[in-house]
Amino acid sequence: MTLAEQIQHRLDSLTKPRGSLGRLEELAVRYGVARGTAELKLECKAMFVFCADHGVAAEGVSAFPSEVTRQMVRNFVSGGAAINVLCRQYGIEAFIVDVGVNAEPEPGVIARQIARGTRNFLQEPAMSREQAQQALDVGLETAARGPFDVVGTGEMGIGNTTAAAAIVAAFTGRDPAEVVGRGTGVDDAGWQRKVSVVRTALERRRPDPTDPLGVLAAVGGFEIGAIAGLILGAAGARVAVAVDGFIATAGALVAAALDPRAKDAMFFAHRSAEPGHGAALQALAARPLLDLEMRLGEGTGAALAIGLIESAVRLYNEMATFDSAGVTSV
Amino acid sequence: MTLAEQIQHRLDSLTKPRGSLGRLEELAVRYGVARGTAELKLECKAMFVFCADHGVAAEGVSAFPSEVTRQMVRNFVSGGAAINVLCRQYGIEAFIVDVGVNAEPEPGVIARQIARGTRNFLQEPAMSREQAQQALDVGLETAARGPFDVVGTGEMGIGNTTAAAAIVAAFTGRDPAEVVGRGTGVDDAGWQRKVSVVRTALERRRPDPTDPLGVLAAVGGFEIGAIAGLILGAAGARVAVAVDGFIATAGALVAAALDPRAKDAMFFAHRSAEPGHGAALQALAARPLLDLEMRLGEGTGAALAIGLIESAVRLYNEMATFDSAGVTSV
Repeated sequence: MTLAEQIQHRLDSLTKPRGSLGRLEELAVRYGVARGTAELKLECKAMFVFCADHGVAAEGVSAFPSEVTRQMVRNFVSGGAAINVLCRQYGIEAFIVDVGVNAEPEPGVIARQIARGTRNFLQEPAMSREQAQQALDVGLETAARGPFDVVGTGEMGIGNTTAAAAIVAAFTGRDPAEVVGRGTGVDDAGWQRKVSVVRTALERRRPDPTDPLGVLAAVGGFEIGAIAGLILGAAGARVAVAVDGFIATAGALVAAALDPRAKDAMFFAHRSAEPGHGAALQALAARPLLDLEMRLGEGTGAALAIGLIESAVRLYNEMATFDSAGVTSV
Repeated sequence: MTLAEQIQHRLDSLTKPRGSLGRLEELAVRYGVARGTAELKLECKAMFVFCADHGVAAEGVSAFPSEVTRQMVRNFVSGGAAINVLCRQYGIEAFIVDVGVNAEPEPGVIARQIARGTRNFLQEPAMSREQAQQALDVGLETAARGPFDVVGTGEMGIGNTTAAAAIVAAFTGRDPAEVVGRGTGVDDAGWQRKVSVVRTALERRRPDPTDPLGVLAAVGGFEIGAIAGLILGAAGARVAVAVDGFIATAGALVAAALDPRAKDAMFFAHRSAEPGHGAALQALAARPLLDLEMRLGEGTGAALAIGLIESAVRLYNEMATFDSAGVTSV
């Protein structure tokens, strides 16, 4: 029997009609395969919220000013943001990683600033190739802080839906108008500007999807690179990764392009309300768990998904079997 | 400001773009409206698993034999069933209510047997009108065991997808072939039999959808009546109800027909893999929270939904505001 078959075999012995737990059964199987064992354990849960600023925010692509990145970092450290609330509920330890905020690192963060924000990728590459590698390395390093059973990918960075849209367009070949959304809530004129910035930047930078580090350097963000690194590091250590929404899936595209085997570790949390998320998910043949029209980021969808993965693992471990419970099987 | 506006106003003051928590925001608003207050509290969580047997099981409409109802009651009491696992994870107290199992009540259950199972509704009405009222009363009584903040509707009863399909067909006018599913997993011949049983029973009983107690008596189940009663009792006490899947939604149809105001208390947990669930949800203009292809019943979907409702309430209560966190608003 393959590992997946072993896990399904145990699921079929539990006191429920076969397959009746639907995608929770699929989650248990995929979790075991990601971890490389039929002995499922889910205790150490971590959320990494990578924070960075974006030079492209100067183009007026966000409803919020850039200083909100720094303000939100402070909010994360004090425990007042949405991701903090959900991590408390689901027993997930939250780590805030400053990978390039345009300010002195806040006390309480893991300080790994690569620069004080990326450059404006409409005018020049967002970062150097070395910086792109550094961003990946921050993610790889955080994955190594474990041992973890599951990690969630979180992020904050005013302007980062613009970077994510450019990455998704680069990898999927979609037109910018298909993958650019409202982000934190730009108006029609802001949306037009955002589409035009992405379109012009792609024409100028011409990122090559077969060179994922080059795509990241051309139009990426430090937090997106760190997410890609976290995914690669977790996959290498056989840790499951709850991939949050639009920004995180842009990071997952980079990770999958660098190492397609990393896909086995990815659990896509939810379908974001950002229109480009569908294109990114399709490129990864991913089917997210939840569809709650969320578009906040921070890792909020990933936190909810970790709760569901935990449900799947607990059912697998704690349910009685037909034999042990004396229930007639068919 | 209306109560809903007050709640949305607070949501809009929290450190996130407006509306970015999607359906979690809608949940917070609906929860407050159901409870009648903008001070959201969600601490006491209860799951009622109503168990009963079905005379119609004699027609070979289930993949499992009737004695499995009793065996599963024992499993619930010992804590080995799927619903026990999920209730432990989400901090929900589980109550097992024997409302008509074909056996001596198990130690540990709330014993409220109306009869040792319904009669075979292919041959005669499932129960008397008095018994239908008794089933509702059991649910009303359990709702009064509170105070609860939220209750979930659970059930177990071999044969009860057949009863639920008949109820859904009676209320929606759908053809039995559209609302009969595989239940615990009948084969093609079993499914044909099940459709034919529902069709013939509806022709013989002619349940009148304007007489919900009559529908329940004609083709219902004791646990379905108890679910309807629980919903009515909870709605009257301004307690939120997480309505599970196909069987529970049949109970919700009975409750809504008896008192349409009860709909304000209903939170539809998930879209069941049972094909008739869609018709039932449509009749109630309901949009479930989850779609995980589950079809186990017991209240398993409701338990997951209670976790999401709790997320919404915690976010509402625990997130910092733009003012308190010093974050620039727009």
